[in-house]
Amino acid sequence: MVRTLKVAVSGLGRMGARHAINYFEKTPRAELVAVCDPNPETMAWAKGRFEGVAVYADFDEMLAHPGIEAVIISGITTEHAPQSIRAIKAGKHVLCEKPLSTDVQISQGVLDVAKQYPHLKVMTGFSRRFDQSYRNAWKKADAGDIGRPVVFRSQTCDKYRDDDYFIGYSKTSGSIFVDASVHDIDLALWFFGSDSVVKSVSAVGTCARYQGLKQYGDVDNGVGIVEFWSGKIAYFYACRMMAVGQHDMTEVIGTHGKLTINANPVHDLVEHHEATGIRREIAQTYWDRFEPAFIRESNEFTEAILDDKPLPFKLAGAVQSLQIGSYLQEALRTGKKLNFDEIGNRVPENLSKL
Amino acid sequence: MVRTLKVAVSGLGRMGARHAINYFEKTPRAELVAVCDPNPETMAWAKGRFEGVAVYADFDEMLAHPGIEAVIISGITTEHAPQSIRAIKAGKHVLCEKPLSTDVQISQGVLDVAKQYPHLKVMTGFSRRFDQSYRNAWKKADAGDIGRPVVFRSQTCDKYRDDDYFIGYSKTSGSIFVDASVHDIDLALWFFGSDSVVKSVSAVGTCARYQGLKQYGDVDNGVGIVEFWSGKIAYFYACRMMAVGQHDMTEVIGTHGKLTINANPVHDLVEHHEATGIRREIAQTYWDRFEPAFIRESNEFTEAILDDKPLPFKLAGAVQSLQIGSYLQEALRTGKKLNFDEIGNRVPENLSKL
Amino acid sequence: MVRTLKVAVSGLGRMGARHAINYFEKTPRAELVAVCDPNPETMAWAKGRFEGVAVYADFDEMLAHPGIEAVIISGITTEHAPQSIRAIKAGKHVLCEKPLSTDVQISQGVLDVAKQYPHLKVMTGFSRRFDQSYRNAWKKADAGDIGRPVVFRSQTCDKYRDDDYFIGYSKTSGSIFVDASVHDIDLALWFFGSDSVVKSVSAVGTCARYQGLKQYGDVDNGVGIVEFWSGKIAYFYACRMMAVGQHDMTEVIGTHGKLTINANPVHDLVEHHEATGIRREIAQTYWDRFEPAFIRESNEFTEAILDDKPLPFKLAGAVQSLQIGSYLQEALRTGKKLNFDEIGNRVPENLSKL
Amino acid sequence: MVRTLKVAVSGLGRMGARHAINYFEKTPRAELVAVCDPNPETMAWAKGRFEGVAVYADFDEMLAHPGIEAVIISGITTEHAPQSIRAIKAGKHVLCEKPLSTDVQISQGVLDVAKQYPHLKVMTGFSRRFDQSYRNAWKKADAGDIGRPVVFRSQTCDKYRDDDYFIGYSKTSGSIFVDASVHDIDLALWFFGSDSVVKSVSAVGTCARYQGLKQYGDVDNGVGIVEFWSGKIAYFYACRMMAVGQHDMTEVIGTHGKLTINANPVHDLVEHHEATGIRREIAQTYWDRFEPAFIRESNEFTEAILDDKPLPFKLAGAVQSLQIGSYLQEALRTGKKLNFDEIGNRVPENLSKL
Repeated sequence: MVRTLKVAVSGLGRMGARHAINYFEKTPRAELVAVCDPNPETMAWAKGRFEGVAVYADFDEMLAHPGIEAVIISGITTEHAPQSIRAIKAGKHVLCEKPLSTDVQISQGVLDVAKQYPHLKVMTGFSRRFDQSYRNAWKKADAGDIGRPVVFRSQTCDKYRDDDYFIGYSKTSGSIFVDASVHDIDLALWFFGSDSVVKSVSAVGTCARYQGLKQYGDVDNGVGIVEFWSGKIAYFYACRMMAVGQHDMTEVIGTHGKLTINANPVHDLVEHHEATGIRREIAQTYWDRFEPAFIRESNEFTEAILDDKPLPFKLAGAVQSLQIGSYLQEALRTGKKLNFDEIGNRVPENLSKL
Repeated sequence: MVRTLKVAVSGLGRMGARHAINYFEKTPRAELVAVCDPNPETMAWAKGRFEGVAVYADFDEMLAHPGIEAVIISGITTEHAPQSIRAIKAGKHVLCEKPLSTDVQISQGVLDVAKQYPHLKVMTGFSRRFDQSYRNAWKKADAGDIGRPVVFRSQTCDKYRDDDYFIGYSKTSGSIFVDASVHDIDLALWFFGSDSVVKSVSAVGTCARYQGLKQYGDVDNGVGIVEFWSGKIAYFYACRMMAVGQHDMTEVIGTHGKLTINANPVHDLVEHHEATGIRREIAQTYWDRFEPAFIRESNEFTEAILDDKPLPFKLAGAVQSLQIGSYLQEALRTGKKLNFDEIGNRVPENLSKL
Repeated sequence: MVRTLKVAVSGLGRMGARHAINYFEKTPRAELVAVCDPNPETMAWAKGRFEGVAVYADFDEMLAHPGIEAVIISGITTEHAPQSIRAIKAGKHVLCEKPLSTDVQISQGVLDVAKQYPHLKVMTGFSRRFDQSYRNAWKKADAGDIGRPVVFRSQTCDKYRDDDYFIGYSKTSGSIFVDASVHDIDLALWFFGSDSVVKSVSAVGTCARYQGLKQYGDVDNGVGIVEFWSGKIAYFYACRMMAVGQHDMTEVIGTHGKLTINANPVHDLVEHHEATGIRREIAQTYWDRFEPAFIRESNEFTEAILDDKPLPFKLAGAVQSLQIGSYLQEALRTGKKLNFDEIGNRVPENLSKL
Repeated sequence: MVRTLKVAVSGLGRMGARHAINYFEKTPRAELVAVCDPNPETMAWAKGRFEGVAVYADFDEMLAHPGIEAVIISGITTEHAPQSIRAIKAGKHVLCEKPLSTDVQISQGVLDVAKQYPHLKVMTGFSRRFDQSYRNAWKKADAGDIGRPVVFRSQTCDKYRDDDYFIGYSKTSGSIFVDASVHDIDLALWFFGSDSVVKSVSAVGTCARYQGLKQYGDVDNGVGIVEFWSGKIAYFYACRMMAVGQHDMTEVIGTHGKLTINANPVHDLVEHHEATGIRREIAQTYWDRFEPAFIRESNEFTEAILDDKPLPFKLAGAVQSLQIGSYLQEALRTGKKLNFDEIGNRVPENLSKL
């Protein structure tokens, strides 16, 4: 008999619902056994959508459901860390949507707990790590195709919206560098090495379309530079008003070549030749762009548990990326360039030097 | 309890094995219950790969396996038609890999039998019909985005091989227009309408790399034109020696615009900037290019049966496309242009006129 | 003192005016000394535009202008051959716009006269031969980058017009294969070798937007295949209704690679990211696409004369290309496939065989 | 008689020789009458290349050549300003290669002198301003196609060299932000408006391939951010080791769309389909990329003088761009973020705030 992993999903919002669907029908070695969401309408939807799956209003009740081996945490951000910790302590493997928290200390707390349960697989959802294009590029970089990677540029650009969604979202998401650029930071650490030590951080930003972001110290366009002691440089752009769609892209410049990922966004293989030119449509949402990566994430998380294989990246990276995102945010808000010594400790402003 | 479709797969060669895998783990509403293949090694492989699935050497024994509702026929081409007919007569839904046969009459025979079992879903595997890009393009054409489609160009180009594979393959595949261009012909009929009546057919070809194809009246590069009485024109190119990989592409030219599908092949989103230029890799095999289409095919075939919905295209189209492919083949072999009257009947050569 | 070539231009229509401008100010080693055009308005325009240049109404009077060494013939098509012959007989070098004539015999007549004056440079305006991209591609093919060229596909597609221009134009231009595809045929002979012997010719066409073309036996979309005895194949598409602009493109498929020229048309380096997608504009007219080629043509023609260097291609090629264009036209009009023996002689229809 | 402008060129190095050729034969309304260069070999070359043109070793002697109306200054950078000033004082129109000087004060000195001769056209060679693609993009931005421009990203990336050229070059070129990014800065001011006031400047850099650059405080990869009081942000990347060639590109992100210039570099229209993928070559040198822009520059400078039309941009912009380039350089060297008040005055470090 094929052994399947019994999985529960907490939180059935935009992302959670998709995780639940992926485990329900796109992860052959996993079995969705329980979900929870406090919203009665969502619960009703789940009962119809997931035949044979237990539906709970309460996380802890779900956690007590017999046989659950792994929990996907994808509810509101403020619950990510507490639920993750309770699940780990209950002996469950955990895949927690990013971020663990918008607060570095709280995120570190999850990491600390996870370290006490080394037999459990605990991962955060850096979906781009599962994207085939990023992986292909990484393999090439790792094989030396571009020499030594030196400069890393990456952007996360959301399609603009005519409503105030991004303003409300900013209240809890921890602002643009922490919410959006954190993906790019994680990628930079992947290509540069997780032992990269930050030397300096600068950032600027502006509210071009959503003035309401200012109340949260947030912006709709942010540019930041992270310099590492290895002599490598990463620079980032995050944007909430891209007209064309979701355009997340990366380039890695090495001493002997460059790799780009999604510099030319392609969503399908259709091109329109019309009176105004040749036109290509691109992905409109994050999900559209990364759906196959999310499915691969579900399958690889499942496989890592069932076959006791290492996860593709370490939980510590989530805290490290969040830390750098927070630095960028601080640099944005204070207008200061932040400096760090060779072991990554903050250099007080009046002592900072080259 | 979720109702799943019980599926059997006949033939576990290159394509059949992939079909079996798709039904085993990528088609949530289907359950693979039996497979058959005469090759002992393949049978052994199947036993290891498909836990809980019955493995037969003989097609008819498999057909008798209790509970089978649908059969996927993907063994050798000469068995496609006979196995399809036996499966239909046994009351099974059938998805038969293309072609039903390389012979038009035999293919028509399957169609004739299928007509007697109108409650059964019988489909042939025109995988490109399930490709998202072709579907997106078709929707746009159908919505009038390019005016009236007038000219259709389509190519099926396989990557070259250093061995003699294509020569051996030609022996049973029915030659390049029947084996490869049949996909493009089917697409032409999709965009132009299945009621399109052929007016004339011309074709030429050459053996540029595989001289051994000549013994089968086959070529490694073929170009053909099909003219329809509606004033529409389709022209095709098929090739067995494309250096860059599998490059199947299509363009549909309308009175007010053009749509291209895969004119710029993209396999992932990586671009290489290196000393010799900017380079992009493309799919190397048919499977690489169309894997998501095959998975969609499995799921939609399953859904059509379970929910009693119409199949996305008619079985008759397979015969129609094969007929046109055979005409191209005849035009190639005889060096003659073939002409047809307004109802599609062949015009004797000495009577042919404009 | 720098020696400059004294040039006269006959015919100041759309193309002629541009030739005159090119010789007036974009061909450093040439000097425009005289122009002629029967139209009084055009003459007036020329007097204002070309300071110091003699303006004639009559070709022969212009030809008698003292010191003229070379004549550019770009008036109406029916005058191309007679004026070329008179200019050659008057001892002038001649660059005659294509076609020499829409009639093969008349074109051959120019060639016959030119042969009697071997010291004169006589060339026809196959502008694409001067296009940098075609030249770069040819050099690569010639260097063996794609192995042996086997299949050649080329298209000439004009932007559609809302008026009846193309209908009136068809009356004298000799129809689409002779007027438009002749460029593609010339390119095919360039890449395949001018010693290529035609084996068969097929063609079809349709009037999709300009029904008025039918009265001239012409079409607005034509597809043709030319098979050579060398086993090489060229196929062509010509169109008068391309929505996006002037899209002339070519691909050369060899045994070990493929070269494309303008498969992805680029007119400038700007891309528009807008709500409907990523868009690129392309050249709208033949002139926009090939302007640098026309300028190079003027300069190289001048250089060939002043330095007594060979012209980049032979006049005989113009007759050869026109002949093939005429065959395509005949194949279109009669609905017949035309066949030829190994030395290029027409095979009577009832004797034609493989 | 056509009136032509009498032009002299000072300095026949890599760029100067090309300027001279452009005025000699690609600028119909100009006449090259004199050149100067202290190098005897270069002088000999010039005598052979430019028939009828006076060749001087000394700038001032050339300046005294009868009839000279305009002087192109393209010798060594340290002579740009002094020669420009002498030429202006001698009543000549001046096109001075960029930079006027690597020193802001010295550059300002040229501007001050030029102001005293308002009837003279004095321009610096910002070649990208004459590039058709930049102009097309600017027109679209100016027409509101992308809403309000907010974020500007631009890079100047030279192809790497195996020798030490860039190290020696750094000694006099004023380092990467002043020499290379100055073009991007000028473009930013063009798209954002020349009245943009700098609010902050940050920069980092690294020596990845040319360690010898460190002795000049220079880097081979530099990233900088310039924040403006208008809320607009420009960020720049400059690089001396791009494997693929000269890749200078720009994107302008507005509230309602984005324009890119050369995001997909195209040098000709050829694409290579080969076993390793589809490949496109790009321009290898700055000249290859911008040759048509240089020719347009010569022609428009000539036209502005002859027809007394305004130059396409103001000389003051050169000083403004250099100033910002110098700020970036200072930010790089000191590791400090520089801050400025609302009228652009430097804010002392200990007083800087948001």
